[in-house]
Amino acid sequence: MGGKQPDGPGALRVSRAARPEGTRVQVGPVEFGGRGFVVMAGPCAVEGATQVEHSAAAVASAGAHVLRGGVFKPRTSPYAFQGMGEPGLRLLADAGRRHGLPIISEVMETAQIPLMEQHADILQVGARNMQNFSLLRALGKVRKPVLLKRGLAATLQEWLLAAEYLLDGGNEQVLLCERGIRTFEPAMRNTLDLAAVAWAKQHTHLPVIVDPSHATGEPSLILPMSLAAAAAGADGLLIEVHAKPEQAMCDGHQALTPSAFENLMRRLPAVLDAVDRHLLRPETPAQIAGAR
Amino acid sequence: MGGKQPDGPGALRVSRAARPEGTRVQVGPVEFGGRGFVVMAGPCAVEGATQVEHSAAAVASAGAHVLRGGVFKPRTSPYAFQGMGEPGLRLLADAGRRHGLPIISEVMETAQIPLMEQHADILQVGARNMQNFSLLRALGKVRKPVLLKRGLAATLQEWLLAAEYLLDGGNEQVLLCERGIRTFEPAMRNTLDLAAVAWAKQHTHLPVIVDPSHATGEPSLILPMSLAAAAAGADGLLIEVHAKPEQAMCDGHQALTPSAFENLMRRLPAVLDAVDRHLLRPETPAQIAGAR
Amino acid sequence: MGGKQPDGPGALRVSRAARPEGTRVQVGPVEFGGRGFVVMAGPCAVEGATQVEHSAAAVASAGAHVLRGGVFKPRTSPYAFQGMGEPGLRLLADAGRRHGLPIISEVMETAQIPLMEQHADILQVGARNMQNFSLLRALGKVRKPVLLKRGLAATLQEWLLAAEYLLDGGNEQVLLCERGIRTFEPAMRNTLDLAAVAWAKQHTHLPVIVDPSHATGEPSLILPMSLAAAAAGADGLLIEVHAKPEQAMCDGHQALTPSAFENLMRRLPAVLDAVDRHLLRPETPAQIAGAR
Amino acid sequence: MGGKQPDGPGALRVSRAARPEGTRVQVGPVEFGGRGFVVMAGPCAVEGATQVEHSAAAVASAGAHVLRGGVFKPRTSPYAFQGMGEPGLRLLADAGRRHGLPIISEVMETAQIPLMEQHADILQVGARNMQNFSLLRALGKVRKPVLLKRGLAATLQEWLLAAEYLLDGGNEQVLLCERGIRTFEPAMRNTLDLAAVAWAKQHTHLPVIVDPSHATGEPSLILPMSLAAAAAGADGLLIEVHAKPEQAMCDGHQALTPSAFENLMRRLPAVLDAVDRHLLRPETPAQIAGAR
Repeated sequence: MGGKQPDGPGALRVSRAARPEGTRVQVGPVEFGGRGFVVMAGPCAVEGATQVEHSAAAVASAGAHVLRGGVFKPRTSPYAFQGMGEPGLRLLADAGRRHGLPIISEVMETAQIPLMEQHADILQVGARNMQNFSLLRALGKVRKPVLLKRGLAATLQEWLLAAEYLLDGGNEQVLLCERGIRTFEPAMRNTLDLAAVAWAKQHTHLPVIVDPSHATGEPSLILPMSLAAAAAGADGLLIEVHAKPEQAMCDGHQALTPSAFENLMRRLPAVLDAVDRHLLRPETPAQIAGAR
Repeated sequence: MGGKQPDGPGALRVSRAARPEGTRVQVGPVEFGGRGFVVMAGPCAVEGATQVEHSAAAVASAGAHVLRGGVFKPRTSPYAFQGMGEPGLRLLADAGRRHGLPIISEVMETAQIPLMEQHADILQVGARNMQNFSLLRALGKVRKPVLLKRGLAATLQEWLLAAEYLLDGGNEQVLLCERGIRTFEPAMRNTLDLAAVAWAKQHTHLPVIVDPSHATGEPSLILPMSLAAAAAGADGLLIEVHAKPEQAMCDGHQALTPSAFENLMRRLPAVLDAVDRHLLRPETPAQIAGAR
Repeated sequence: MGGKQPDGPGALRVSRAARPEGTRVQVGPVEFGGRGFVVMAGPCAVEGATQVEHSAAAVASAGAHVLRGGVFKPRTSPYAFQGMGEPGLRLLADAGRRHGLPIISEVMETAQIPLMEQHADILQVGARNMQNFSLLRALGKVRKPVLLKRGLAATLQEWLLAAEYLLDGGNEQVLLCERGIRTFEPAMRNTLDLAAVAWAKQHTHLPVIVDPSHATGEPSLILPMSLAAAAAGADGLLIEVHAKPEQAMCDGHQALTPSAFENLMRRLPAVLDAVDRHLLRPETPAQIAGAR
Repeated sequence: MGGKQPDGPGALRVSRAARPEGTRVQVGPVEFGGRGFVVMAGPCAVEGATQVEHSAAAVASAGAHVLRGGVFKPRTSPYAFQGMGEPGLRLLADAGRRHGLPIISEVMETAQIPLMEQHADILQVGARNMQNFSLLRALGKVRKPVLLKRGLAATLQEWLLAAEYLLDGGNEQVLLCERGIRTFEPAMRNTLDLAAVAWAKQHTHLPVIVDPSHATGEPSLILPMSLAAAAAGADGLLIEVHAKPEQAMCDGHQALTPSAFENLMRRLPAVLDAVDRHLLRPETPAQIAGAR
């Protein structure tokens, strides 16, 4: 599978040296890896038509660039809500279309790839599947971008080598996503490792995204960590927003309300400007329709 | 999928309370979970007919009860040896048959299940797949025992809930396996958590196995950790043994030589006797053939 | 010792609720905890008159507000350089005076307090002494500010309670300092926990400082982590700068060169401005002399 | 301070190579590091004359060799019980004398050393002080044995180098004590690292003790972990026993009752015998009096 290892000891396709100018990943009108900073937002899980529409409307009006939402949910307990599956994916895609937003959703197994490839614009690999090498091999054959979350306790080297499976398989449209690592600290869900973001930008040519929602599990920390991520050199954010967090079927405790998300979107530009970046310019729905 | 959650808040099928007498898992003549202590041994990876035969002969003559060997290898790097696949599985099964040993091998994805179910006696889920819930769901339908390794940074509760996926799916033949957790300590590959073994014995009714090879990554520590595991109440061991560790294609640095493994097998009975256990009695090949 | 616990279950003197407006710590002309952002910089260890003068001149000319330098060094090995002791402290204080900079230095034991109190403007408690409660008790009686580093594996609650020892002892001039925590990740010296900074700002009224040098151990990450710290709401930085890092007797691999430090000082204002802060205004030496 | 580093790169006084036959530490009639396995037991903290007498009587009658009890308590919160200090130490020493048991107690700072040296037979350095180098330097000058607990997140190399401070200072009577490390796992107080025990036995010549009480924080795990420690090659145990755990002022939740401790003492000999060790033979009070 894949080609042979690039020449040189330890040489990797993901290495910055392999593409010093950096990789840009294009999803319709949305470009990752340039000066434009990309915000992906939406509910943890798609729960129904009304919920996804309200959430999509809220994040679109606040200026988000991509709509997120899970339909296959990796849940610690078999008795927790496992996601709506295909019907949920259709709801998410419809909502994205209505609001001019590409969509991102998680794929948990090889068998789900054809469905996801058909409806989703970006396929997400969750932290628990970062070293699901069979899934990575299969996603190497896909012609859609893949967002690869760092594993709960994955070293930076392991994260890079997981991405290497995708590039080695032929898919170069890869986004890395730091979402917090597991440490001894009980006050937060995970420990956000922003130095990993700066490190990944230096050592690879891939865009790097930050998920402050899973990293902290605490709404009051999402704004400061989003600003810090922007200052650290991240290329974008992945944020949980729910129209009514208190009614969410999954991770509602860590979702931003629409107004908190609006506030975040208002605060980001100044920090981005300070590091010579800017929020990705909004495109008109017509342009989006044309680009798709 | 599966039934509904057992009654009571937090009630789980894996809980000791659900089966106070404990679960016994039968694999041909080998019983896990009784007074007999089970030793599974063999190479990290099946590399060829000669290697697997030599390793099988060595572990069988030393008194091992089950032959281990990987044919689908989850490797951090896409450029590392990925395992022999089906031909390797046939070699392993043949060697097991010749030496009267059931075999255990790792399954990495749902698509491999039919093949593994046909040839392997125990299907192993590796640490990196402990929360591959799609795989767990599929293995819940299998009628062969599953050995579920604890994830690299999985809490005990997450480990139990991963096993719950299997039981909820209908497969009650589950072995838990502690294989070390990831900590800050660089002197060893992982940190063996033997208190987790005693804890799992108290909180669940499932047999608990210890893998000191992956836990320590250091041959000189495997003997003391095996004895400690036996004293802590483990029901068995999973150990890497290679006829020629220095030539191994995978993890040779942590494999025991046949003579070191023999020494371990000589040392175990006294400790087991001290905790009112014993090495599982060897059966004759004829009995095994009959039981299969 | 100290008074009784403030009323209410779990009530602490360090809690934000106990002083909602926040604490300002004044050190000569330098104020911590206001809108002004404070940069403390200098060598890991004082090595001699020339070295400390060159380093002090470099950080002063780049705009640092406080001069750092260790004279009592907690070293993992008894055979490593243990610091110059009192003569080094006098060199540091002289250099600070010449360049109009207050100084900060680490105190390792109670017996060193009188000397440090005489010469240093801020007394630092290192990560390894965060729970040296005897030292904390003694520092509670001191009338100089104390910078309290978070322990290598200290929870946020433990960090706060260590600070509580100081306040309970009567010293309210306390600066918290996040310097990275110990995790499984080998690529960096520690994992910088910037969410801890935002959390500490929300839960306590104390100024919070970030030490990106010890947190990352990697000069190329100090700039992005300093900017991220500023965006996350930190009140200042503690940074290792050495005139000739390659000749340093201690931690030279993580020290910034003077020119890298100048670059950092040029980059900070824009990020600070984006979060409605600014670099603390430089004072004239005359003002400083008057304020001391 | 101390001498110069032993010859050779990385050579340490604590290395097994420096004394292949191993160090024996003699405390009155109690010898650590030989075939005899030593059990130290008693309450977390000395609380009063009755409590310490009841606890001492209980552990003595069950066969413990050394009486433990804290009088200077390093407590996370300044509002928690901080220990009885000198009066408590006298109570502990008296109880030890009455029951023919040497005593061990924790020393938190240099100023406490003269008092502890006068009354205690073994001076304990707690996990939070493992890298309190000033304290280690001072204890290097003491002529009584020191038990050095491994830090909460100390690497094995750091633990050895902390012991090296003691040996380099001139005190060769050092006992290492593994007491669990801090990991992500919330189900137990810490993660007991028994491989560290086997590793320390291989790499140093010092006796190694295990503290299963602090390691697990859970009475039901202390028996299996004590047996496992014995099987792993430990030279002894340090166990919290309280006559009435539910009334303890400190860590009562993890103390064994006298009857649970008796059961442990009955179970140890068989495991020790399996690894060619035995419980240290009890001496008569007369012999003890003579040896003191």
